[in-house]
Amino acid sequence: MSKTTDYINNNRQRYVDELFELLRMPTVSADSSKKQELVKCADHLAGHFADIGLDSKVVKTAGHPIVYAEWLGRPGAPTVLYYGHYDVQPADPLELWKTPPFEPTVKNGSVFARGSSDDKGQFYTHVKAVEAFFKTGDGPPVNVKFLIEGEEEAAADNLDKFIAANTEKLTCDYIIVSDTAQFDEGCPSICYGLRGIVYMEIIITGPNRDLHSGEFGGAVDNPANVLGRIISRLHDENGRVKIYGFYDDVVELSTTEREEFARLPFDPEKYRAALDLPQLYGEKGYTDLERVWARPTCDVNGVYGGYMGEGAKTVIPGKVGAKISMRLVPDQDPDKIEALFKAYINKITPPTVRTEIITHGKARPVVVPTDSPALTKARDALQKAFGAPAVLMRGGGSIPVVETFKQELGVPALLLGFGLPDDALHSPNEKMSLAQFQKGILTSAYLMGLLAE
Amino acid sequence: MSKTTDYINNNRQRYVDELFELLRMPTVSADSSKKQELVKCADHLAGHFADIGLDSKVVKTAGHPIVYAEWLGRPGAPTVLYYGHYDVQPADPLELWKTPPFEPTVKNGSVFARGSSDDKGQFYTHVKAVEAFFKTGDGPPVNVKFLIEGEEEAAADNLDKFIAANTEKLTCDYIIVSDTAQFDEGCPSICYGLRGIVYMEIIITGPNRDLHSGEFGGAVDNPANVLGRIISRLHDENGRVKIYGFYDDVVELSTTEREEFARLPFDPEKYRAALDLPQLYGEKGYTDLERVWARPTCDVNGVYGGYMGEGAKTVIPGKVGAKISMRLVPDQDPDKIEALFKAYINKITPPTVRTEIITHGKARPVVVPTDSPALTKARDALQKAFGAPAVLMRGGGSIPVVETFKQELGVPALLLGFGLPDDALHSPNEKMSLAQFQKGILTSAYLMGLLAE
Repeated sequence: MSKTTDYINNNRQRYVDELFELLRMPTVSADSSKKQELVKCADHLAGHFADIGLDSKVVKTAGHPIVYAEWLGRPGAPTVLYYGHYDVQPADPLELWKTPPFEPTVKNGSVFARGSSDDKGQFYTHVKAVEAFFKTGDGPPVNVKFLIEGEEEAAADNLDKFIAANTEKLTCDYIIVSDTAQFDEGCPSICYGLRGIVYMEIIITGPNRDLHSGEFGGAVDNPANVLGRIISRLHDENGRVKIYGFYDDVVELSTTEREEFARLPFDPEKYRAALDLPQLYGEKGYTDLERVWARPTCDVNGVYGGYMGEGAKTVIPGKVGAKISMRLVPDQDPDKIEALFKAYINKITPPTVRTEIITHGKARPVVVPTDSPALTKARDALQKAFGAPAVLMRGGGSIPVVETFKQELGVPALLLGFGLPDDALHSPNEKMSLAQFQKGILTSAYLMGLLAE
Repeated sequence: MSKTTDYINNNRQRYVDELFELLRMPTVSADSSKKQELVKCADHLAGHFADIGLDSKVVKTAGHPIVYAEWLGRPGAPTVLYYGHYDVQPADPLELWKTPPFEPTVKNGSVFARGSSDDKGQFYTHVKAVEAFFKTGDGPPVNVKFLIEGEEEAAADNLDKFIAANTEKLTCDYIIVSDTAQFDEGCPSICYGLRGIVYMEIIITGPNRDLHSGEFGGAVDNPANVLGRIISRLHDENGRVKIYGFYDDVVELSTTEREEFARLPFDPEKYRAALDLPQLYGEKGYTDLERVWARPTCDVNGVYGGYMGEGAKTVIPGKVGAKISMRLVPDQDPDKIEALFKAYINKITPPTVRTEIITHGKARPVVVPTDSPALTKARDALQKAFGAPAVLMRGGGSIPVVETFKQELGVPALLLGFGLPDDALHSPNEKMSLAQFQKGILTSAYLMGLLAE
């Protein structure tokens, strides 16, 4: 192993240069004019996997291609599947970037470029670790499979289809996903839980057109006022969601988990100040981290209707709407929550208007066991590479593919994020710390060694 | 008089064609990109007044111009001031128009176009009546003044300033405003009361940017949820406005007025069905007409914020807003209501967000005496032109200039509306009945004759 880690340390600059090659490719999956750039990047990656010593191919889909590579030269050893994505978010608004988004620029030990942390600089750590094993011996101590997609930042289900159609080919013992951030700098982390989501829209129709608020005001229930009444009834005065049955399946945090959350170096005042908020707010009886990681929510994501321009227009809106999503925690079931939401909205809708309810998307919450051998080994690998004990954390967002892996392959994913909380994902001036990149490669190498034992 | 009314009947089509010329001009006063269109319309009107035989001019203001025209060739006869406005409401939402809003289209005896009933097709009746007197003799039997503004649909006080600065020039015996609807088809009406208005906007700011609802949801109060809670607290369960002191100065309806309202041929079921509403709704203890004409309201005119596009985006909005206006009845004072509104919103805003409150416009409620000689003559003129007895009604809207006229010129305005209740003012597919337009011109001619007696 020391030969391999020495190689990783001695080739640090070359590895960074090769990452920069990837970062120069503007692989914006949401921008159809960039279609060829994604094809080029997929070809480049497949070629690179082949150069290292893996069997690789570019898989065409209805959208952007998937890169698949594998090396199964270690019979009897476990097989690890690595997931990542080579596509990136759009770089807009361009004028807020201090350096060009697709010309990687190093400042203060970080590389600034779109996709540096999300996700090129993260999945590439595992590619480089595998390469180091080949360069210093006969390959990694485990069998490896790489599944690198090009549509994570776009709404598409081509990867799900590919996984469902290739469950045998993708068979594995472990799945590792590096597409999250660690808790803080100097605080290597494993994310063992993510929230699910149900995303709804309600559309309230009153009169068959926008009405003059003078001619009709007083005799007609106003859909925008009704929307306000409905939204106000989503929560009680303690910040708890009032939808009947919403909490029925929620698994309460264990005392141990609450104690572990409380030990993390979280500073509510710093958090509040960074958001310019007068004060934080959430469900009574829980800390901020508990609220974001382990409690379900019901947030209005957008409201619209009536006159939304400058100045004044005296209308009673004929139609208004709200996008409302609920973040879910184990064991809430998205289908059940969707049904409870619909029933509740229908129940509280007054008889003066009509309400239409649309579902835009659903994902299950996921929590993996924290006492599995894989997780313990990952903590050890992080400790070795970072020289600091790894913490366990959860995430408030959703990574739908994690649930797909669990359902289709029966394997829980290990969320091993090397990003930092200030990496500005999806924002201008996205960056990746080069020290994190380097320690990520070392972590990956150590972990392969530990998983092979 | 019969020469004149014959002329009006014989020139019906030409009058309609000339109205269409006006309707083709997209004089949206709220849209700054249309500034030149309003200038063009004002020039066109001033030219038309001159062609007919009046002295006319375009008066520049800080906003859109005012058109003023007069003919004082009848010494000893009374002077009538006609008020109207050539500006129109925005045509949005455009996709709901069945015919182009600025291409007048005739269907079922009505012309469909933005501004047809509000107010081009109404004030133009008096212009055409005056023209007919010139074409069939030596001019109208009374002195006439026309004051046609371009900012009625925008919040502006340039007309008020002009009136205050020109009280001598505007001296008159009667003021006639045709900018309302009659009670129903076949039911010519005079409106003796209007509601006032205070139009506000509240802007709620939470975090300093739209946040990822997964990463932050649960620990941050959501401005859109807060907006819902605020809107829900504007009314109690009986439909009464909860703003402290809101009803303090409201003059309750007399038994006589309530009886007269009740005698009008109002059919709640027809009213409900025309709006496609499941049911009507309003303040408990009052009839629909009482609610619209003589009770104050608090209506949300628009809501906006967060993600308003198609599909889903998982954000907690950084900022949301609502346009909220209150219709006022005698003796509510707009300044006092504005202050009460601000105090109430500030009181119910939670400490988790910041709220900004903007005032967009204010107007006093007004009620005129129902036993004046002018009002009696107007009823006679309506009876002659429409062949049916005229009823007395009130209106739910606001015409702020009526209060200005009363204060500055000491003359109560006569509200002689030729619109119909289904004209869809401020809505898509606004229309004006061409029969109403024609009878309006005849009414105007008869009324000039009666006022000269």
